[in-house]
Amino acid sequence: MSKALAFDIGGTKISYSIIDENGKIISEVKKFHTPKSIEGIEEILKNAIAEHENDVDAIAIATAGSVNKENTRVIGSTGNLVKGYNTIDFQALSPKKVFVANDANAAAWAEHEVGASQNCADSVMLTLGTGVGGGIIIDNKVFTGKSGAAGEMHFKMYSDKRRRCTCGSWDCFEAYASGTGLKRTAEEMLNDKDVTTYDVMDGVKNGDKKMTEVFDRWQEDITNGIIGLANLFDPDCFVLSGSMAQFVDCKKIEDEVNSVIVTTKTSVRKGTAGNYSGMIGAALLALKSLEAK
Amino acid sequence: MSKALAFDIGGTKISYSIIDENGKIISEVKKFHTPKSIEGIEEILKNAIAEHENDVDAIAIATAGSVNKENTRVIGSTGNLVKGYNTIDFQALSPKKVFVANDANAAAWAEHEVGASQNCADSVMLTLGTGVGGGIIIDNKVFTGKSGAAGEMHFKMYSDKRRRCTCGSWDCFEAYASGTGLKRTAEEMLNDKDVTTYDVMDGVKNGDKKMTEVFDRWQEDITNGIIGLANLFDPDCFVLSGSMAQFVDCKKIEDEVNSVIVTTKTSVRKGTAGNYSGMIGAALLALKSLEAK
Repeated sequence: MSKALAFDIGGTKISYSIIDENGKIISEVKKFHTPKSIEGIEEILKNAIAEHENDVDAIAIATAGSVNKENTRVIGSTGNLVKGYNTIDFQALSPKKVFVANDANAAAWAEHEVGASQNCADSVMLTLGTGVGGGIIIDNKVFTGKSGAAGEMHFKMYSDKRRRCTCGSWDCFEAYASGTGLKRTAEEMLNDKDVTTYDVMDGVKNGDKKMTEVFDRWQEDITNGIIGLANLFDPDCFVLSGSMAQFVDCKKIEDEVNSVIVTTKTSVRKGTAGNYSGMIGAALLALKSLEAK
Repeated sequence: MSKALAFDIGGTKISYSIIDENGKIISEVKKFHTPKSIEGIEEILKNAIAEHENDVDAIAIATAGSVNKENTRVIGSTGNLVKGYNTIDFQALSPKKVFVANDANAAAWAEHEVGASQNCADSVMLTLGTGVGGGIIIDNKVFTGKSGAAGEMHFKMYSDKRRRCTCGSWDCFEAYASGTGLKRTAEEMLNDKDVTTYDVMDGVKNGDKKMTEVFDRWQEDITNGIIGLANLFDPDCFVLSGSMAQFVDCKKIEDEVNSVIVTTKTSVRKGTAGNYSGMIGAALLALKSLEAK
């Protein structure tokens, strides 16, 4: 059975493990704080590759940031990763094939292959965490656009400049539908700078009326975003993953979306590929790229 | 040279003509008011087909409304066409191949083949008219989604329910970026129910400050919509067509879009396939479908 050594490189941590062609994690997942230097990141990759490359068929890298269409390097918008991260030549790290994928695209592929969107030819995955990631599957393939950067969830929720987004523009979906977005909605509605997402979720659990209103507003923003995406992409399903997805009422969102879209009905469900879906998806894409040769 | 008899069926008129495989219109374009009955519509189609079907290789129909993935019939959202329009069995009208396409998708294909987006593998066309149509080309193919209905420009510009859209929902791009949207923006900003799009464009031409502010707001809404679409689809270019596109400053929109998107730079340009781009695109798609067999 073919296997890949798969990494997940994010702004705060780097994880890796060996994953087989069925998407199964077959070695302990190792984790590191993401170093603040290119050399530090490369060292973690090199050490792991030196230890495992003889046991695997390919090296897979799920990474924050946009990845080029050739799946060899990062081309931009690397969030809180060190400056110059996009200059790393990943293929130079191993004689084995090194396959690089955007982490959200990789996670969407994992859901398509072994998770919640199996049997869906067209799907949109939203990772609701500190930010919002997006991975789109069209006709059973990862949709990348002209440069590899498609599926960025930076479309506007308002057109009158209310909230700055991390991307520098205003009022993107990410600035509302993320965990950070929930905190900002709470700050605005409660006029309290110190309120946290934990306060909101704790309040909802305890039946607090104001906190429930904040949560409902947040969920309505997610619903509004999905309505637009459903009319644009007409997908079989939406998959919600990431740390904030656990709080969301998929059935309620699905019913509201289906009551207003002009396309045919879609489905909204939670991801099932797990916390390591980025690594799993990257591994499966890397092994698939070997077959194609 | 192969040829198609191509129809464009809209809410107010039906046009038809013979179009060759190069997208050239080779017979006089005939026009009719769209009948208010299914029988009336079928009669126009039947008479034209009876007259011309021996001269052509296929029948092509560009129509308002969503079309199924098999390109044989209309499946919904037929705007102001007669009720039951989606029950018409177009293939039954001729022994020749009858190919049905959504009019905006067909127009996007015409731009891709003989118009402004030639040499663009990935493009988004927006038809700015009474409403807003959308046609999306991905990887040199018309993007249709799971049911054929993808590319509907009903994503929200605001999330606090300001304007009803024709689709029944609130604040869709169509309700802002269309000609009707320009009138509504003028109504709101000038507090005048009787102002027309003509008044606005006439005012802009004569340097009227208030009318120019209305127009700028309308163009900013179009820009905001394109920013979201650029981040989602990462296309090589946007093509603006339809009666309202003539007023738009493509260069200004392109510069603003490229200054904020997180994907790589795109281009915004006017359509060049002309007023009959729907018929031309449908004809080219119909003839292409014959080749594929």
